[in-house]
Amino acid sequence: MRKIADSTVRRLSLYLRLLEEFAHEGVETVSSQALARRGGTTAPQVRKDLSFFGSFGMRGMGYRVPELVSRLRDILGLEREYVVVIVGAGKVGSALAQFREFASRGFNISAAYDHDPAKIGREWEGIAIRDVARLDRDLAARPADIAIVAVPAEGAQPVTDRLVAAGVRAILNFAPVPLAVPADVTVKHVNMVLELETLSYALRHR
Amino acid sequence: MRKIADSTVRRLSLYLRLLEEFAHEGVETVSSQALARRGGTTAPQVRKDLSFFGSFGMRGMGYRVPELVSRLRDILGLEREYVVVIVGAGKVGSALAQFREFASRGFNISAAYDHDPAKIGREWEGIAIRDVARLDRDLAARPADIAIVAVPAEGAQPVTDRLVAAGVRAILNFAPVPLAVPADVTVKHVNMVLELETLSYALRHR
Repeated sequence: MRKIADSTVRRLSLYLRLLEEFAHEGVETVSSQALARRGGTTAPQVRKDLSFFGSFGMRGMGYRVPELVSRLRDILGLEREYVVVIVGAGKVGSALAQFREFASRGFNISAAYDHDPAKIGREWEGIAIRDVARLDRDLAARPADIAIVAVPAEGAQPVTDRLVAAGVRAILNFAPVPLAVPADVTVKHVNMVLELETLSYALRHR
Repeated sequence: MRKIADSTVRRLSLYLRLLEEFAHEGVETVSSQALARRGGTTAPQVRKDLSFFGSFGMRGMGYRVPELVSRLRDILGLEREYVVVIVGAGKVGSALAQFREFASRGFNISAAYDHDPAKIGREWEGIAIRDVARLDRDLAARPADIAIVAVPAEGAQPVTDRLVAAGVRAILNFAPVPLAVPADVTVKHVNMVLELETLSYALRHR
């Protein structure tokens, strides 16, 4: 399969959410137009995004909602569960730990890690904060699929090296530095300033 | 100017960061190859992204770093400052309030708003938490350019309507619902589950 752009994957996630809404409303088939309208995009864009993954829908009939939900879940890798660890129990880590939707999507946070003795041993809504010194041993005992790196800039690369050595192959990076990883590890960098800059860009070019 | 994709704007933000690093290292000219290498993209992509905004660089010489930094700041709307309000003083709001990089980029958080009496009157690192009942009056006295909506789902649309009525034209939405706004208002939806799904997609298709 050819490489799919990140922006396409993000739209597939959006379509999945919209289709789940349609399903919840009892809608059984939906046109690319209806999906596009609710998602703020265009029908050709919807058809193009889905066409990367084979043939969906029936000419003139639209997509069968339950079938497309299940195909999108499969495409997005959501037909299984993921073990997620959070490294860094600061404000960002704590904000992430509270997102109930993670678990409902199959992203199960197994633990958070920090080196601050005042935090170690505490719990966030059932998620234990553990000593980051134990990270490697813990991951050897219970491997994680995804790590969320929410430590200060200077600590991000060393902890990433440890995560990669422990077998983690996907990292969500909140630290304000790029992370060097082997080619088989995927890093997704979250940068809130960058989000604000898409807004300043929009304000500048109105 | 033709409409530029969000993903292009995000890369421009990234190029700006990389160019500032080059400048910090004393580099005066940089090739599209060097910029691409540091940014994890390709030289043709760099040239294409910049070409939307006119002609940059000298054939065979690359880009002059200070000039391109200043052009990118202009394109991204960063040659001015922005007043930003945060609505919702929960964990997400508090995590955002701590990001020092906002102010250094010219995004100045003027206040945070909540309806919880236990929070109103407190301060986060110099940012006052004010009664959300005062939001409209406050914005009339001191307009905001950008609002960060970090309230629970059910409160997001009502507060958005008030922000729009008060003249806010750009919204960063952390609430897990789509927001309806007039055509001249830009909404950017931040969804952490969606970020995790780009990682589950990557793990699924390795």
